[in-house]
Amino acid sequence: MRKVALVAAGVGKFGVRQATYRDLIWEAGKACFDSAPGLRPKDLEGLVVGSVMPERTAFQSHISSLAAEALGIRPSALSARTEHMCASGTVGIRYAYAFIAAGLADLVMVLGVEKLTQPTSEEAIFNMGTGVDREWEAAFGLTAPPCFALAAQRHMTRYGTTEEQLGLVGVKNHNHAAKNPNAHFNKGATLDQVLCSRMISSPLRLFMCSPITDGAAAVIVASEERARDLTDTPVWIRGTGQALDGFQLTSLPEDYAHWPALQRAAECAYRMAGITAGDVDVAEVHDCFAIAELIAYEELGFCPKGEAGTFVAAGRSDYGGDVVVNPRGGLIGCGHPLGATGVAQAAEIFVQLRDEAGARQVPEASIGLTHNNSGMGEHVVMIYGRQAS
Amino acid sequence: MRKVALVAAGVGKFGVRQATYRDLIWEAGKACFDSAPGLRPKDLEGLVVGSVMPERTAFQSHISSLAAEALGIRPSALSARTEHMCASGTVGIRYAYAFIAAGLADLVMVLGVEKLTQPTSEEAIFNMGTGVDREWEAAFGLTAPPCFALAAQRHMTRYGTTEEQLGLVGVKNHNHAAKNPNAHFNKGATLDQVLCSRMISSPLRLFMCSPITDGAAAVIVASEERARDLTDTPVWIRGTGQALDGFQLTSLPEDYAHWPALQRAAECAYRMAGITAGDVDVAEVHDCFAIAELIAYEELGFCPKGEAGTFVAAGRSDYGGDVVVNPRGGLIGCGHPLGATGVAQAAEIFVQLRDEAGARQVPEASIGLTHNNSGMGEHVVMIYGRQAS
Repeated sequence: MRKVALVAAGVGKFGVRQATYRDLIWEAGKACFDSAPGLRPKDLEGLVVGSVMPERTAFQSHISSLAAEALGIRPSALSARTEHMCASGTVGIRYAYAFIAAGLADLVMVLGVEKLTQPTSEEAIFNMGTGVDREWEAAFGLTAPPCFALAAQRHMTRYGTTEEQLGLVGVKNHNHAAKNPNAHFNKGATLDQVLCSRMISSPLRLFMCSPITDGAAAVIVASEERARDLTDTPVWIRGTGQALDGFQLTSLPEDYAHWPALQRAAECAYRMAGITAGDVDVAEVHDCFAIAELIAYEELGFCPKGEAGTFVAAGRSDYGGDVVVNPRGGLIGCGHPLGATGVAQAAEIFVQLRDEAGARQVPEASIGLTHNNSGMGEHVVMIYGRQAS
Repeated sequence: MRKVALVAAGVGKFGVRQATYRDLIWEAGKACFDSAPGLRPKDLEGLVVGSVMPERTAFQSHISSLAAEALGIRPSALSARTEHMCASGTVGIRYAYAFIAAGLADLVMVLGVEKLTQPTSEEAIFNMGTGVDREWEAAFGLTAPPCFALAAQRHMTRYGTTEEQLGLVGVKNHNHAAKNPNAHFNKGATLDQVLCSRMISSPLRLFMCSPITDGAAAVIVASEERARDLTDTPVWIRGTGQALDGFQLTSLPEDYAHWPALQRAAECAYRMAGITAGDVDVAEVHDCFAIAELIAYEELGFCPKGEAGTFVAAGRSDYGGDVVVNPRGGLIGCGHPLGATGVAQAAEIFVQLRDEAGARQVPEASIGLTHNNSGMGEHVVMIYGRQAS
């Protein structure tokens, strides 16, 4: 299997945008090309687009071809859209990664995009229901917030996790986002603000939840030979893992605060990368809700099971701690434009491992991790390194 | 790069079905497992689902996870949906193929599914418009039938191709479909019937067009080691190519009867397989409209440019000719449930190269080809063989 690296990355402005899919694609694509001077659209052999619901929001399928044309890319090796709900971007990166690792391509862009607030933000909330089982769960109101709220309640009951500890995830990620010009929110937040914000699904309050956001991000993935030609500082893909416990809530293991699939995905990625959890310097973790970040600390091995609340309270997932989690602001602070999220996570690790993250720079970051899920039972983990394995 | 093969394939009944997505998935999944006795859902490491618009027809994203759960598959290596409009199924096969070729997985199901006639067939016709550029083309009525009609008019003007020759594609494929119990249509057709059928977009008449169809199909893709364990007659993936000329009609080369991207995709696949067009015994070609099959003969190299009309009229693309094209009935006879089509094409090549195609068997078929497009400017070609390269 060939070595594979990221050689370019760019992110557009996340938020409620007066922009079409095409506008968002142009913005992220341009930012990505700007990060790799000398690389032109016609040099690329393919494009993979992670996007969930352009059919609903823009009456548009076939969005990878629209994007290729918008960016001047003429795929000669691969072109496709990937969808895996909130993990659509990362499964797109894995599509390009496998093609390049197998020797079927050398240089491919992966772009994630979602224009969720179209035609309205209210319709977006309705559309988000397509991510859970419509016939058996969504139709009865069991959409994402109540599912994750059940996990939070279980974690609080079993491990004594407090509302304040959940709130601290919101504080950290909103404050990180304040240093990220592309984030949806940029005012930061105090614990009081988080704990006094509107209740969404008990115990999850507004500032503990990711918002409905428009946005796009792109990375360029390359074979070892092309990567070394193009840059002195490629960011290597060292490991990847994906695992599923179940789709319907009723298929998951009974303890909703325990996510074995994430553990398995992480173990697979760590093994492939030849590292352990303790080696990770910076992590982009799927904080669709604050409880998800806490459970991820545990299943990723950053702290023992049940101790995530005290881990965040002690600042161990922030600058100066064991591992900096969500330096760009996570989904809570940066926003969650479904298909764009996984690619934006990779783009953040790219700048962190190249010392290009500016005010958000994690000192001496050498190993980075991204975790992207598509429900409590389905997880994808990627490991990146300054050095190849 | 590791060798990769198909080890199982199954197709459900295509047509206007009183069935949900889940029903169609069960049906094709079961047919696929039935073709490989001893193989159980829990043996698989992943599932890729090709599907275009479950968001519109069933208010359901995340359909690969729904499918995995419906079939009892618990992905431990990969899970995703792929979308590339009419070529969604083949880009799904390529996802699994790359993972296995790279050594990232060993045994993966690829399932294609579309429930187009939901809630109604009229709405389906409207929904098909999502496949072309909504803002610049679909909004002005430039959907698939007029695009392909322009190609047909050009081919007739430039090469003297006749309406009768276009009609003979409809006759052949409707008659082939009559021998396929899973086809949408099973009554066959005469040239008179085809030429007297309703005009859709001049010169394309109803029996020269693929219908709006529900259906699903599945194949299981394996590494060499697993393939040899599981069966004495694996069907090897010997080559693949994908290329794009453009998405919008106005981006295509000026001569709509000439599809250079298909030529490039085929050249890439032939080179990889170490064969030439003359070696192909059986081909599943993307006859969304009769003209597409004729142009494909030429771009795939089955006959010189401009001679496709006389090629079909001489029976050279039928049993007893140079290459049997669309033995299962093609998209015209079998139907075109978007995401399912590419997978059903692969499933047909699977049975043909194992001498299991019954009344449709192409004698001594040793090399098979599938061609799946997603518009006149975007093409995917796969080459399969009884023998590995």
